[in-house]
Amino acid sequence: MKFSFKNDYSEGCHPRILQSLLEHNLDQQAGYGEDNYSFEAKALIKEKIKRNFSEVYFVSGGTQANLIVISSILRPHQCVVSASTGHILNNETGAIEATGHKILSIEKEDGKLNPSDIIPVLENHKNVPHQVMPKLVYISNSTELGTVYTLKELEELSAFCKNNNLYLFMDGARLGHGLTSEISDLTLEKVAELTDVFYLGGTKNGALIGEAIVINNQELQQDFAFNIKQKGALLAKGRLLGIQFLELLKDDLYFDLARHANVQAMKMKNAMKERGMQFLSETFTNQIFPILKNDLILKLSEKFEFYIWKKIDENSSAIRLITSWNTGDKAVNDFIEIIKSEL
Amino acid sequence: MKFSFKNDYSEGCHPRILQSLLEHNLDQQAGYGEDNYSFEAKALIKEKIKRNFSEVYFVSGGTQANLIVISSILRPHQCVVSASTGHILNNETGAIEATGHKILSIEKEDGKLNPSDIIPVLENHKNVPHQVMPKLVYISNSTELGTVYTLKELEELSAFCKNNNLYLFMDGARLGHGLTSEISDLTLEKVAELTDVFYLGGTKNGALIGEAIVINNQELQQDFAFNIKQKGALLAKGRLLGIQFLELLKDDLYFDLARHANVQAMKMKNAMKERGMQFLSETFTNQIFPILKNDLILKLSEKFEFYIWKKIDENSSAIRLITSWNTGDKAVNDFIEIIKSEL
Amino acid sequence: MKFSFKNDYSEGCHPRILQSLLEHNLDQQAGYGEDNYSFEAKALIKEKIKRNFSEVYFVSGGTQANLIVISSILRPHQCVVSASTGHILNNETGAIEATGHKILSIEKEDGKLNPSDIIPVLENHKNVPHQVMPKLVYISNSTELGTVYTLKELEELSAFCKNNNLYLFMDGARLGHGLTSEISDLTLEKVAELTDVFYLGGTKNGALIGEAIVINNQELQQDFAFNIKQKGALLAKGRLLGIQFLELLKDDLYFDLARHANVQAMKMKNAMKERGMQFLSETFTNQIFPILKNDLILKLSEKFEFYIWKKIDENSSAIRLITSWNTGDKAVNDFIEIIKSEL
Amino acid sequence: MKFSFKNDYSEGCHPRILQSLLEHNLDQQAGYGEDNYSFEAKALIKEKIKRNFSEVYFVSGGTQANLIVISSILRPHQCVVSASTGHILNNETGAIEATGHKILSIEKEDGKLNPSDIIPVLENHKNVPHQVMPKLVYISNSTELGTVYTLKELEELSAFCKNNNLYLFMDGARLGHGLTSEISDLTLEKVAELTDVFYLGGTKNGALIGEAIVINNQELQQDFAFNIKQKGALLAKGRLLGIQFLELLKDDLYFDLARHANVQAMKMKNAMKERGMQFLSETFTNQIFPILKNDLILKLSEKFEFYIWKKIDENSSAIRLITSWNTGDKAVNDFIEIIKSEL
Repeated sequence: MKFSFKNDYSEGCHPRILQSLLEHNLDQQAGYGEDNYSFEAKALIKEKIKRNFSEVYFVSGGTQANLIVISSILRPHQCVVSASTGHILNNETGAIEATGHKILSIEKEDGKLNPSDIIPVLENHKNVPHQVMPKLVYISNSTELGTVYTLKELEELSAFCKNNNLYLFMDGARLGHGLTSEISDLTLEKVAELTDVFYLGGTKNGALIGEAIVINNQELQQDFAFNIKQKGALLAKGRLLGIQFLELLKDDLYFDLARHANVQAMKMKNAMKERGMQFLSETFTNQIFPILKNDLILKLSEKFEFYIWKKIDENSSAIRLITSWNTGDKAVNDFIEIIKSEL
Repeated sequence: MKFSFKNDYSEGCHPRILQSLLEHNLDQQAGYGEDNYSFEAKALIKEKIKRNFSEVYFVSGGTQANLIVISSILRPHQCVVSASTGHILNNETGAIEATGHKILSIEKEDGKLNPSDIIPVLENHKNVPHQVMPKLVYISNSTELGTVYTLKELEELSAFCKNNNLYLFMDGARLGHGLTSEISDLTLEKVAELTDVFYLGGTKNGALIGEAIVINNQELQQDFAFNIKQKGALLAKGRLLGIQFLELLKDDLYFDLARHANVQAMKMKNAMKERGMQFLSETFTNQIFPILKNDLILKLSEKFEFYIWKKIDENSSAIRLITSWNTGDKAVNDFIEIIKSEL
Repeated sequence: MKFSFKNDYSEGCHPRILQSLLEHNLDQQAGYGEDNYSFEAKALIKEKIKRNFSEVYFVSGGTQANLIVISSILRPHQCVVSASTGHILNNETGAIEATGHKILSIEKEDGKLNPSDIIPVLENHKNVPHQVMPKLVYISNSTELGTVYTLKELEELSAFCKNNNLYLFMDGARLGHGLTSEISDLTLEKVAELTDVFYLGGTKNGALIGEAIVINNQELQQDFAFNIKQKGALLAKGRLLGIQFLELLKDDLYFDLARHANVQAMKMKNAMKERGMQFLSETFTNQIFPILKNDLILKLSEKFEFYIWKKIDENSSAIRLITSWNTGDKAVNDFIEIIKSEL
Repeated sequence: MKFSFKNDYSEGCHPRILQSLLEHNLDQQAGYGEDNYSFEAKALIKEKIKRNFSEVYFVSGGTQANLIVISSILRPHQCVVSASTGHILNNETGAIEATGHKILSIEKEDGKLNPSDIIPVLENHKNVPHQVMPKLVYISNSTELGTVYTLKELEELSAFCKNNNLYLFMDGARLGHGLTSEISDLTLEKVAELTDVFYLGGTKNGALIGEAIVINNQELQQDFAFNIKQKGALLAKGRLLGIQFLELLKDDLYFDLARHANVQAMKMKNAMKERGMQFLSETFTNQIFPILKNDLILKLSEKFEFYIWKKIDENSSAIRLITSWNTGDKAVNDFIEIIKSEL
């Protein structure tokens, strides 16, 4: 059996979650998120971000979180601005457009948006009423390419959005990995302070399912729950989400798991860097994109599963390796062994 | 702690499911429903309905199943026909309309549709192109009122739909309860034969989440998966759904659980009937609607939770009692005890 | 050639409109409603309603006006409340649902809504977040049945809506006929004062096309033009709408035309009443619904076109007669002649 | 009063149209496009394209035509492919996305698509079901930049679409100008043969309003009228559209008007070319984009209105000049006079 570096959702969930599900399994609870576990988990998140007036909602996945947040916020003529690598642009089967909203794409190699990227988009959308109105800026952290926002970058973007009457929404499907990256100086508290809405992704960080949407801008909280229900995302057994987030967050397991994934990726990255290997881009989270000789790729593929990301030339390609909360030392060491065996 | 008869999703899940989740937890599997458990569970369902050319898709809940099925099938000008009690009409926050489609409501006391209900709707929608075109008939079994379709009724409705170029879609959130009702002569195989699409509900019958959509009409299978993804319903860890349905179906646990719930409800129903108590309507599944004196209701509410369904007169009301796969004999006996203590 | 009483849009337009189109035909004007005629017509409407802060927008037809107004105002989870006879419910091919919003229908024989009709709808939609939220009340004046609102009725409905945080929107496809009905004590100024949005219909009152949407609630004005454009309703040659409304409104031609239509209908009504004929309902606008013997209907149909509205019994049916700005005395007299010839 | 070269919809309509409206004004006709004029106009179009089995529908404007055609054809997960200059991408306030469909943009300087542009888009959208499915290719002729398709180009594109199971839809808002361009070898008949759907634009070629949608692919005709009604585009007085197209088409007035506009533009273009002036791109229809010194632009703007299209450098800019069916020789000569007066 090959070990898979294809993604961070190949396994079930962290054992503590299953343990907690077992423990509380036969307690009777109210449905639709009115269970005690959900209440506790929400309170815990608010405590961690030190914002009691924020509101927390649990849904099962990232595409669901994105489409519900965006369609709930925007009026029909308003649109989203996203980096060209944005998950909503390429990997969600037009989920946002299906709710009626255009996404304006900004070509970015590093997957991150800054004010100077957005200014020309605003300039080019002033032909009222013949064009959509940019109203929400969508960013991911860590991004789809594994890069992260610094505190300063997020502060600048946040201030720019406020000044331009734009909402700022952070897709946090891999927020744990972003915040625990060795180069990140951003904190969960700061994310909450600087965004209108963000979510804490569980699915890619040890949960079976689940993203915790946090709405910091109080204007955007009103009636949000209706949209969760309308889009089919309100679980009858909301306890499943509550229990998971409670377990993940109660002693920072969430961040430990993400940090572990990052550390394992960095070990592999460093091993390859020591051998002089190049990368498509330098990342400091659980996604790395080494450029390897085809022979080596073939050799690695005998023991590991991963995606060939991009052909570089006749002899080499970039591959994508993703580590997870469950990537053990054995897999990492075995991988490094093969790398080291290269002359 | 009061025992709750409020609904059939108050507990977690059947212990065998948690056991199976534990057992397979750390196996690496492909994402998005391409895992082995999902493949096996789908094969098992096809085997049970004896229709290899049907296609099976798992989603997390009933509203999600309803909106994806309906929006995938209908063209923009086409609409749904439903009994006035239909879940899609009153309990899904306009989920169907949010995908662009009108629902025509037919007033029915028993929650069931038959051809003579639909004929006048078709008659009244012939002013082309000024009116929506009825194209899909939505039914539930068991219904939202706990009633069930007989084989003959479903055969007639199915033939009528075929003759009138209408699709027939059965909401099976409580299909287990419908099929295992003591008065049902319908089988899963027949349901598959007589509908274009139906689903097997897991959430209300022992799963944590999950409904298994079965598309029998091959014309409607094409590209269906795109719509699951677009509506945010494609779980990264599809294994969670696969494992559950595999466990529920592999030795008919699914039907055993539903039958158990029905039996428990019937015990309570019979105890009340023996005491001469009336019911809002006679049902043979896990939902019963006894009409009780307010004093008795008060007394019951000291030990049990349930919904007051409808005020009947100054002295009495109908209540709704729902039993589940996990409603034990103690709760039932305690309830009956109180009933019997009434003079 | 038979004379048609089928509807009020059988002819082209009032000759003064064509005259004005001719006169200004080759003037160059800015596009998309930025022409002088549109500006003047809008100013004239604001003057007539004595509300300078209202905003006026022209679109080409009633369904278009309805769908743009409603989809612009409502958030995704909010819905419309309408009498069961509402044009949006039965005659617009699901146009409102196609923008994502449910319409709750209230069964009414006279086509008019009052607070006591709406109260139970609000009562029955409190299961947050499982049901749509009623947010906009849609009424027509004159209604689809030819009935009209009195000042008192509209005042009560308006106050009720304000108190319940509901918007009030009046479909005025036949507003001229409503306001000039002999029994109406409502004025255009009062309509503007008591509604959040209404429109003045041109198509059914002498224009080629055109409805003038008037938004009185300033909160609802923001960005409205975007939605007109997005729904394909912003005419490049907005002058066509501006010139028509300017001509219709500049010396109250609009009301003269509507009054004429009403008067012609009342002549026919009175002739039939004098002969003891019954009506499906008593109306005082340009739509009348006499119940006639089939023999007489046959005889009338040799000279006139009209719709058979409803079978009453084996020997008689109700027919619908609609008069227009262009229904001349000859047609009316010929019709009355036949009525009188009945013994 | 300055003469405007800003667009081709500054005036009312060709006088013959008003004459015909006057002549038929008081004839009673059936509503909603069931009038004799519409029937005749449709028959005339089918005759001209020699395709009796094509179907013709009239709507009032281009955005409306685009959104109705596209939303009628596509299933929810399917999307449009367009050149980056496409009207639907930049100038319709997200009208297509508002119906639920993404538009994939292909960067093109000349505004035209060919198979090699589309191949990589298809290649990059094979990650089923995580991405939208390209299904309809949208092109304009003449394009938004004034360029035109040759017969060979359209044949290749058409064959490519057929081979790849894509529909081909031509926006013909300026189809007259495209087909009567001095460099065009394409005919209306060929357009009908090579596209699934196209439309003949009236608004920009002498009509008050109106586009004639022609559906050549019989599979796409079914129930199309419902969508026209649902989107608010079915005029009660369809005669307004019928009369205009009848008049425009009955002796090829439509093509004469377009040719006239082209000729006037070419006169101005040639005068500028003779003086050695450059153009942003060379066009052969009624839109030209000369690059002029700022001094000259200033001088021209004293007598003419036009858009500054793009700044070229400190001293010069490109302007956009559009001629129309009503651009007389005086305006053209006055313009050329100023050009010639330059040294």
